[in-house]
Amino acid sequence: MLSVEAALDLVAKHCAPLAPRRVPLEEAIGLKLAEDIASDINSPPYDKAMMDGYAVRSIDREPERRILEEIAAGDVPQRRLECGNASRIMTGAPLPDGANAVVPVERTELISDGIVRLLQVDPSAGQNVLPLGASMRAGDIVIRSGAVVRPIEIAILAETGHSSALVVPRPRVAILPTGNELVAVEEKPGPGQIRNSNGPMLVAAAKRADAESIEIPVARDTQADLTKRVQQGLDADVFVLSGGVSAGKFDLVPQVLAALGVEQVFHKVALRPGKPLWFGIKKKADRTVLVFGLPGNPVSSLVCFELFVRPAIAALAGRGFSQLSSVRAKLTDAYAHGGGRAACLPARLDDGGSNKLVEILPWQGSADLATLALANALVRLPAESRQFAPGATLDVLPI
Amino acid sequence: MLSVEAALDLVAKHCAPLAPRRVPLEEAIGLKLAEDIASDINSPPYDKAMMDGYAVRSIDREPERRILEEIAAGDVPQRRLECGNASRIMTGAPLPDGANAVVPVERTELISDGIVRLLQVDPSAGQNVLPLGASMRAGDIVIRSGAVVRPIEIAILAETGHSSALVVPRPRVAILPTGNELVAVEEKPGPGQIRNSNGPMLVAAAKRADAESIEIPVARDTQADLTKRVQQGLDADVFVLSGGVSAGKFDLVPQVLAALGVEQVFHKVALRPGKPLWFGIKKKADRTVLVFGLPGNPVSSLVCFELFVRPAIAALAGRGFSQLSSVRAKLTDAYAHGGGRAACLPARLDDGGSNKLVEILPWQGSADLATLALANALVRLPAESRQFAPGATLDVLPI
Repeated sequence: MLSVEAALDLVAKHCAPLAPRRVPLEEAIGLKLAEDIASDINSPPYDKAMMDGYAVRSIDREPERRILEEIAAGDVPQRRLECGNASRIMTGAPLPDGANAVVPVERTELISDGIVRLLQVDPSAGQNVLPLGASMRAGDIVIRSGAVVRPIEIAILAETGHSSALVVPRPRVAILPTGNELVAVEEKPGPGQIRNSNGPMLVAAAKRADAESIEIPVARDTQADLTKRVQQGLDADVFVLSGGVSAGKFDLVPQVLAALGVEQVFHKVALRPGKPLWFGIKKKADRTVLVFGLPGNPVSSLVCFELFVRPAIAALAGRGFSQLSSVRAKLTDAYAHGGGRAACLPARLDDGGSNKLVEILPWQGSADLATLALANALVRLPAESRQFAPGATLDVLPI
Repeated sequence: MLSVEAALDLVAKHCAPLAPRRVPLEEAIGLKLAEDIASDINSPPYDKAMMDGYAVRSIDREPERRILEEIAAGDVPQRRLECGNASRIMTGAPLPDGANAVVPVERTELISDGIVRLLQVDPSAGQNVLPLGASMRAGDIVIRSGAVVRPIEIAILAETGHSSALVVPRPRVAILPTGNELVAVEEKPGPGQIRNSNGPMLVAAAKRADAESIEIPVARDTQADLTKRVQQGLDADVFVLSGGVSAGKFDLVPQVLAALGVEQVFHKVALRPGKPLWFGIKKKADRTVLVFGLPGNPVSSLVCFELFVRPAIAALAGRGFSQLSSVRAKLTDAYAHGGGRAACLPARLDDGGSNKLVEILPWQGSADLATLALANALVRLPAESRQFAPGATLDVLPI
């Protein structure tokens, strides 16, 4: 059976960043820029006061000055400043012609309505002034293609006149739960039925992985219904099916996928839980749709999502095929690992800074959601059979 | 002037988790549960096959068996199983009456349409069967109040029939940029004007802090316009104003806030950049609105957001008043810290695992967004004046 590493390599090989698209500024957060951003302005656009106070000429040594005008942020100064003058100025406002320094208001005394006394008479040229273009000049590249848009980049894009940006878009991830046994959360399950929990779980997981989640209604185990739903799923960038990929006679999913032109890349991975994982691709004129068939058991499904689907989403978003970073922690209790398959087991990580402890949780197999609620991590064990003693250092993936 | 620590304490004192509210399941992700969640079902709801194969009685040692029926997930078994029988069964399907073990299909041979030979004749009782209620029983508390809803909890809520959940809701954060000098991103700034970059930046930052962001149109520096916009802002849980809180004559914000019943808690903090920070509260019948007046300069604004607003959002969401966790890193180049105020400076963190390096970026004062684009961290320096040598270990807040 394919090893986890070989399976990851196969998935990574088919991942490429999505074609860039122009999106409105407010949708760009978290996405990777696909163009250099040039400024269309000087910043600041004028010599700018950095404090509230009086604009003056630095060569002028006169303590008392005639006040010419009052300049607030957003105003345009009306009067040229000569020696013997001062203009009241607010933080952010443009310096008037002739002025080259600002004396803070705390270092002045208002003598009368039109006269101010400076307690500091020897300001240096440029004191409390940010000169025109100090931060950026028109035509400067202010953000390079490839940068991920954070709140700071949003501010720079807005400041430099970009109401939209060319970015690698957020991958669209379609989630399709399959199975005759599934009923909606609002319904009371009859004999042989269970509620659809994988659908909402995977929708939430994809959203948390910064994808755009699309939930497709449950497909029943018939050729016709599966075909209709799979066609919907193939409109997305990543198509995640839940259930219908184990060896059961009613597991029609691989057949339906093949009929719709999805090429199988692999089926089954040496992983516990998660062995039935199916992966394929559908080549389209403009892109390749990644198709994941996850096991129907919720724990297996979540493990496969974390190990395989999350890195693929990151890769399509241009952030590279990367998992959540794992940490090293010491095992609290002995654990006998049967081996044969690599394991990814629900665990409780106690994050004591540099002294991290991890407990492997006892669980009832891959349908055991209740145990998983106590888990905050997955412990990764290699394929080799081994007895792990208390204190053994293990790789742990926080979830 | 108030220290950063004293100011943080004052903000924390006024933060309490928001009143719980019932939200649809798909909106609960990331939020804190405010009720215990009980299951209304047994899981599994029946003795359930964990593999594809044949359901059998474990005491039966007969190698060849008559096949009674075929049971898929979602089916209800029709035939009681006696010794000499086997029923074809799929993963997830309910065991028929009389059966207590599943022999994997790989360990069987189909002899004819109705007869199967078992290669394993001595299955143990319960082999490959998850017994009814093994994971949870009806009435069990499956998630405790106070848990944060992750994809796993979404699955458990769905499985146990909860299409909604009582949670501490996502704080609503209203953002109000103020200033006559601000024009929209689509406009070309005239003399004395700059584009509104703080508004979109803070909206994005609040969203990234997992709040619901509400953008209020720019308020002009008039009593009337500010009053109208501030009233809108006070409908939110957290109200963030940008600009209008320094000592300038046109800084009407504190007056307007007072007139609308907002009590000032503090104004000015010994922090560079970020000194003009204003904080107050508006007591309402059902809650206390937190009001932050951030400096208009984008870098100051972002620093104040990270240090003060983000922890407040977390506290209102029930996650406690906590900042992003800081890391320790070694300074690359000497830095002379003037002291007098604590500092929070744009920096470049080079995260080499255990050997983290940080470079304090040269910047042109708090309006210098271009430098901040290179920053991926803020370095925190104490209020005391000090020469930091290369290799000095500093507190760094990744952003």
